[in-house]
Amino acid sequence: MELKEYLQTEAARIDAALDLFLPQETELPHSIHRAMRYSVFAGGKRVRPILMLAACMAVGGESERVIPAACAMEMIHTYSLIHDDLPAMDNDDFRRGNPTCHKVFGEAIAILAGDALLTEAFRLLSSPARTAGSAPAGLLAVIQEIATCAGSYGMVGGQVVDMESEGGHDIDLPTVQYIHTHKTGALIKAAVVAGALLGGADTVQLAAITRYGEAAGLAFQIADDILDIEGTTEEIGKDAGSDVARGKATYPLVLGLAAARVEARAMMDEALRALELFGAEADRLREIARFIVQRKS
Amino acid sequence: MELKEYLQTEAARIDAALDLFLPQETELPHSIHRAMRYSVFAGGKRVRPILMLAACMAVGGESERVIPAACAMEMIHTYSLIHDDLPAMDNDDFRRGNPTCHKVFGEAIAILAGDALLTEAFRLLSSPARTAGSAPAGLLAVIQEIATCAGSYGMVGGQVVDMESEGGHDIDLPTVQYIHTHKTGALIKAAVVAGALLGGADTVQLAAITRYGEAAGLAFQIADDILDIEGTTEEIGKDAGSDVARGKATYPLVLGLAAARVEARAMMDEALRALELFGAEADRLREIARFIVQRKS
Repeated sequence: MELKEYLQTEAARIDAALDLFLPQETELPHSIHRAMRYSVFAGGKRVRPILMLAACMAVGGESERVIPAACAMEMIHTYSLIHDDLPAMDNDDFRRGNPTCHKVFGEAIAILAGDALLTEAFRLLSSPARTAGSAPAGLLAVIQEIATCAGSYGMVGGQVVDMESEGGHDIDLPTVQYIHTHKTGALIKAAVVAGALLGGADTVQLAAITRYGEAAGLAFQIADDILDIEGTTEEIGKDAGSDVARGKATYPLVLGLAAARVEARAMMDEALRALELFGAEADRLREIARFIVQRKS
Repeated sequence: MELKEYLQTEAARIDAALDLFLPQETELPHSIHRAMRYSVFAGGKRVRPILMLAACMAVGGESERVIPAACAMEMIHTYSLIHDDLPAMDNDDFRRGNPTCHKVFGEAIAILAGDALLTEAFRLLSSPARTAGSAPAGLLAVIQEIATCAGSYGMVGGQVVDMESEGGHDIDLPTVQYIHTHKTGALIKAAVVAGALLGGADTVQLAAITRYGEAAGLAFQIADDILDIEGTTEEIGKDAGSDVARGKATYPLVLGLAAARVEARAMMDEALRALELFGAEADRLREIARFIVQRKS
């Protein structure tokens, strides 16, 4: 199967499971469940869930078992986007070409929809019905990894520094590195680590997958920074050049565009090197690493 | 030990543990950790954690083992207060006599501090270092209970209906019951259920503690509604009469003050009846149920 078809197939698997796992719009209170589903189904590429499935496969696990955790990861990713878009934060009216959650449902429901998605993720990760095939100790380790990477030591911490750096004139490389490894990188790392844990990875495999996740996560965000400059508004589904307009801390800003491209490739190479101990079962992870830096949206 | 002294002693135990478990202000990013600690240490009575410890004792468990989960519960309670106080929600400038989180740190950091506290709660509940004495399956059951009671089927759902009912003119008893059992009741129930689970409750004990939690939770919120009318601003630490001014859905509004008082007592009696199968080891739970409807703040 070609990578493009593989990504579409896996995204469809995730979408079907999300549809099943998320509260239905017919359940009370309707408004919050509508808002949660609206944002989850607003066109995400399901990068994190797919990475989790691929990491599980790379260590010889059955990807079916990872689907609930992969959906939980997408719920956390979606909550972070809803809150990032709020007027008090980035104040974005559009996301992936659609009106943002607070534009459709109002600020209060958007805040609560984000809160509920974050909570629902941990409900799913601990659901006895959904996770019947996994050992409780393994599930706890996954919850620990995801919570650590999503909170103030991870994604939320990255968002704080990103916000506090915005428009600043003395942004240096260590600051951008902190933002990128935390705001985007942490959740991508958590996705592959969770996939490896649930797939039954041994210590050596887990260390390799962790290094892959760190490098791929950074490559992903640098590529995003570059796309913001080079992509068209239509391709990237939000205003092109918006990072520059806001004085966002990005790799192109501190290194220049050419050096940022070199860095993205270097991170991709590091991700690929981390997989050297795996055979063909890690090919999807390899293809995704290459795709991450070459994509146009 | 008198109840008052007992409550103070247990609250001090919780505060010491929270101080240890919460990220330190010296840890990066400082601003978010300062905001998280500010709101957690802004004068809460630690009702939910103390109920968890008392429920654990009632089933014969060691309360020391419950401290991390009790702290997680207080983090979730605090996150809900921070988000409830936001301008887009209740728009409150003061809470327990102190300026609210967004008044001190700004809206963006307040949103993120709430997010981080919610996430940190699940990090604590799954921490191998903090929960070493508990069986993984029991911890997962606790996470499941807490996440279910905190999310859109529980606390967040109650907040949504509360908000959507505000100022409405046709608020009926079922609506107020839905709001109270979800917005406040769910987390109080989760606290005692988690305490019982971690204390090693059998099925019969767990069912009794659950009924206690449901009744005590509702009694707590009805008493709160009454205090809003009868208490002074100084006693309750926020503007007295603010529920009435906002047209909030409350028991006194739909039943009148006298009938609301009768209902609070009836719920207290129900909570006490649920404990009949326990001996003196449940005395603290009994005292707390009485205290809940008789308190002045």
